[in-house]
Amino acid sequence: TCLVLVQRVEAADPDPLVDFSANATTPVFRNIFANGDVTTGSGGVRAALDIGKFPGLTSEGLTVVQFKMVPCGENVPHTHPRATELLSLISGGPLQAGFVDTKGETHINILYPGDLIVFPRGLLHFEVNVGTELAFYISAMNSQNPGTLDADGAVLQLPERAAAIALNIDIAAVRALKSQRPYNEPPTLEAAKPGVCVPGQLITTTV
Amino acid sequence: TCLVLVQRVEAADPDPLVDFSANATTPVFRNIFANGDVTTGSGGVRAALDIGKFPGLTSEGLTVVQFKMVPCGENVPHTHPRATELLSLISGGPLQAGFVDTKGETHINILYPGDLIVFPRGLLHFEVNVGTELAFYISAMNSQNPGTLDADGAVLQLPERAAAIALNIDIAAVRALKSQRPYNEPPTLEAAKPGVCVPGQLITTTV
Amino acid sequence: TCLVLVQRVEAADPDPLVDFSANATTPVFRNIFANGDVTTGSGGVRAALDIGKFPGLTSEGLTVVQFKMVPCGENVPHTHPRATELLSLISGGPLQAGFVDTKGETHINILYPGDLIVFPRGLLHFEVNVGTELAFYISAMNSQNPGTLDADGAVLQLPERAAAIALNIDIAAVRALKSQRPYNEPPTLEAAKPGVCVPGQLITTTV
Amino acid sequence: TCLVLVQRVEAADPDPLVDFSANATTPVFRNIFANGDVTTGSGGVRAALDIGKFPGLTSEGLTVVQFKMVPCGENVPHTHPRATELLSLISGGPLQAGFVDTKGETHINILYPGDLIVFPRGLLHFEVNVGTELAFYISAMNSQNPGTLDADGAVLQLPERAAAIALNIDIAAVRALKSQRPYNEPPTLEAAKPGVCVPGQLITTTV
Amino acid sequence: TCLVLVQRVEAADPDPLVDFSANATTPVFRNIFANGDVTTGSGGVRAALDIGKFPGLTSEGLTVVQFKMVPCGENVPHTHPRATELLSLISGGPLQAGFVDTKGETHINILYPGDLIVFPRGLLHFEVNVGTELAFYISAMNSQNPGTLDADGAVLQLPERAAAIALNIDIAAVRALKSQRPYNEPPTLEAAKPGVCVPGQLITTTV
Amino acid sequence: TCLVLVQRVEAADPDPLVDFSANATTPVFRNIFANGDVTTGSGGVRAALDIGKFPGLTSEGLTVVQFKMVPCGENVPHTHPRATELLSLISGGPLQAGFVDTKGETHINILYPGDLIVFPRGLLHFEVNVGTELAFYISAMNSQNPGTLDADGAVLQLPERAAAIALNIDIAAVRALKSQRPYNEPPTLEAAKPGVCVPGQLITTTV
Repeated sequence: TCLVLVQRVEAADPDPLVDFSANATTPVFRNIFANGDVTTGSGGVRAALDIGKFPGLTSEGLTVVQFKMVPCGENVPHTHPRATELLSLISGGPLQAGFVDTKGETHINILYPGDLIVFPRGLLHFEVNVGTELAFYISAMNSQNPGTLDADGAVLQLPERAAAIALNIDIAAVRALKSQRPYNEPPTLEAAKPGVCVPGQLITTTV
Repeated sequence: TCLVLVQRVEAADPDPLVDFSANATTPVFRNIFANGDVTTGSGGVRAALDIGKFPGLTSEGLTVVQFKMVPCGENVPHTHPRATELLSLISGGPLQAGFVDTKGETHINILYPGDLIVFPRGLLHFEVNVGTELAFYISAMNSQNPGTLDADGAVLQLPERAAAIALNIDIAAVRALKSQRPYNEPPTLEAAKPGVCVPGQLITTTV
Repeated sequence: TCLVLVQRVEAADPDPLVDFSANATTPVFRNIFANGDVTTGSGGVRAALDIGKFPGLTSEGLTVVQFKMVPCGENVPHTHPRATELLSLISGGPLQAGFVDTKGETHINILYPGDLIVFPRGLLHFEVNVGTELAFYISAMNSQNPGTLDADGAVLQLPERAAAIALNIDIAAVRALKSQRPYNEPPTLEAAKPGVCVPGQLITTTV
Repeated sequence: TCLVLVQRVEAADPDPLVDFSANATTPVFRNIFANGDVTTGSGGVRAALDIGKFPGLTSEGLTVVQFKMVPCGENVPHTHPRATELLSLISGGPLQAGFVDTKGETHINILYPGDLIVFPRGLLHFEVNVGTELAFYISAMNSQNPGTLDADGAVLQLPERAAAIALNIDIAAVRALKSQRPYNEPPTLEAAKPGVCVPGQLITTTV
Repeated sequence: TCLVLVQRVEAADPDPLVDFSANATTPVFRNIFANGDVTTGSGGVRAALDIGKFPGLTSEGLTVVQFKMVPCGENVPHTHPRATELLSLISGGPLQAGFVDTKGETHINILYPGDLIVFPRGLLHFEVNVGTELAFYISAMNSQNPGTLDADGAVLQLPERAAAIALNIDIAAVRALKSQRPYNEPPTLEAAKPGVCVPGQLITTTV
Repeated sequence: TCLVLVQRVEAADPDPLVDFSANATTPVFRNIFANGDVTTGSGGVRAALDIGKFPGLTSEGLTVVQFKMVPCGENVPHTHPRATELLSLISGGPLQAGFVDTKGETHINILYPGDLIVFPRGLLHFEVNVGTELAFYISAMNSQNPGTLDADGAVLQLPERAAAIALNIDIAAVRALKSQRPYNEPPTLEAAKPGVCVPGQLITTTV
């Protein structure tokens, strides 16, 4: 009798070629909510870094985004073309968060402070504050420039014919959807319309 | 006077560690439209490879998908989480094809036989046959398992509340959209509803 | 006249080959300070992840460690052989933190909540809580298994002759140093001996 | 009794750091047989891309070459120092194609339209049109600059003494071989001399 | 007037995921000329490592080969599909060594003890002892399994028709060449036939 | 019955994007002990390469360092942030060499000519000539710029308070240690103080 368990491990973590980027004067970045790439929407505030404002990140292969989200706020569904994300909920919420994989299966959870969730590279994900307290959370990403693609916004940027075929609706219906919202760049956190979310109403993770 | 800003070029092409996968008996794959991962939709046929059916691809870091698309057929908007794609139109069409980048800018073109288009890693892209002839095209991707995420399908797989906030519509409108189409996995090519596309009607690249 | 600015950037961010590790049942990890790799020293608590406890990290190429450090506590000088680290101070402190590069130059700073610091791959770094409040901070690292090498502990694990030549002291002096502390594995946060640190006493960043 | 089968899977697919190269004005390349790197030999036409003519390929980590080969034409034995190749036969032929691995074992096959063959990175390979129809095929390679090393040409570029030892012949015999053909750069497709190949004569794959 | 030359630097050095391979019992390998992969030809002795005999190399991303070559011996022209090589001549020789790049340009030099030469990944290279003393040299390669492809042997392993077209000779001439030497696997160092090399006769680097 | 757990670990070796760096005029470097980065200490001479002096190494992903070490000389404990090292002892010694892993376990051995040892990426290692003859050895590293971090020197470059907590000693004791030696950059080989090492005295590998 023989039982063989083969553990697959296939990520490779590459190296920089120098200690520290030659055009970085400091490894420190001060007060990310004041000096970062800060965007404020009806759902809260998002503060990111970029190598223009923080040259110390150059060639280091990772970045961090910090969020303060109001109840019923959402970080709308998006993908990162160049990074996996690991989110730590610090306080508040709880947060409903999850992703859809390439089989169309959803992985949705309710997070409490101290919990973490991973969004694998390139998969569609979102977060909603389904609690009654401001949610503060931090996401790490393993690229200096992960990129963020607003999924609905991107589909509605396509030629109308392409979007109509994709949604199996007519052109007029595509135009109606487009009239509701722009492409979300820079990314902002959005609050729900009345009736869509009640603070503290968790229902189930799949609703 | 001369100011030159040189833009970064940073892709790395990594190596396999062996000549050829130990469980590959042959480097050849026969008749991809008969033996591949073949999916047929109202818009045409898509034939892909996977390392289950073609172990010779294992660890080689690339794959190919071949398409035969009817007029007004569409490869619905999607992303590949793990690959850049380079598409060659062989015959037929023409094809309207393009992508949306992380700034929300669209890059849309009409392709004729002999033309190629690149879809950078993780960005949202699509193809529509806007001509009157069956379009035959081949896409190369630089991963053994690029993955395909159906963008609209994925958004509509999310919790309804999350999708409603994202589209800035109400829950009933989300349900109406969901009723129109499933998550598209395995990926199929879809034909336009009547009125959405007229074969040969190019109009402009942005429509 | 000719001004040429060539920006060098050379990190590569590699891909996983699958959406999600086949042996991961969930992308969520609950309550890192209860369920993680938790180590408690006189200087505070450190909570890390590993792919044994959290298989969802497998092949994703990043991890997170969370710290709660008492005033005058220290995360003793160490290196990560396989990752760059990006630290976010959430609350408390302030924290004195910094690294030594391969030229022997130090990069030391005082961090306040909202500040971040990067420790490039493989360089020696440390953190001390030089304030009067418990410091809560989160470090992201771009490897699923960064490894932690306790610098002083490692040197004192070497053959005594090697350590003595390295420190330019005699064998007895090496033994005296060894008697003061063990190799620090699993890594713990250590409090200062009396006289070495006074809570809230910042002095300067270089002391 | 114990049977252990360990499956090795080790390719890594790396990322670009940006959506799209800043010096690329378009993701489209028009009419590769007119505007590409086109080389014509007695055996047919080869059309490749390079980042000079198609800046949109920059940092994307893959390229494509298209071939139109006459009966008894050959893409002479060569290696790609920086890429694996995946060839799709579109029409015509059949094509005899194969490679030699580092054990000296040959992997030779006859390809018909719809068939594909993989040439692992750095291994010696070739294609001959052993049929009676023009063969049209497309090769994908997972590098923006695979490079092509003409194997016989390279050996005959070496110092004559080195080539003579390698072939175990004398200097005069090396010179005779050199007089027959130059180093083949840019790569061209070559037709067989009379007597070497009869169109449609397959014989066996190993001849 | 402004001339700008932008130098591309793009190699990435990737990481292992663990300190040390789980199936390695020791980081030491004893007496490479007795216990390594030792091959002896008429031109001398070559001693290499492999992860079967030295599991400590597993996942470390480099290896070493050591050579003792007699006057007029040759390491016959070959490529490494998966590594760049950096050769250090320790004693003896001198050594004529060089490579052919993908433009067909040769880079040939005479090396004396203390000199080094780099053979870029996948390019055709060779070494000949053009002196009167046994040459002892060590080559480092940046892969745990670089692979070695004997260039002439590989071409002569191809179907005769393919080899004949490639050399622009007839089938009989191909057979004559094949009769002179086998595929050289495992790789051995070969001595020159009489008349091809005179010990100590340097002539010029290009002969 | 047989239970086998195979832990897969498979570092990937990435590619350059060109044959040879455009600013490299030659692949040869002459006389490393005269023209390299040569540093001489009381323990012997170390000769390294860098891409400033040897542009031919640029983007090739490896380098070599050569050492001539007197009896009782030491290459003091250090780490390479960006490379694994593979050391070949050519002559003399024997050499005591080893490393400490991230568990604090030591791997120490006595090397004789013909032996090799691997120091995995980022781990603390050292070499001492414990014999009576000048030791000549060559180390290969899989990065064009591995970097060298002098472990004791780096700890003693830290703020005194941080070093004191780390060693669990007081500030005065830190200052005493600092007075004994500087940060060792450029790296030099150091001889033992009297009493610390007797040439030829091996004792055991762990002393």
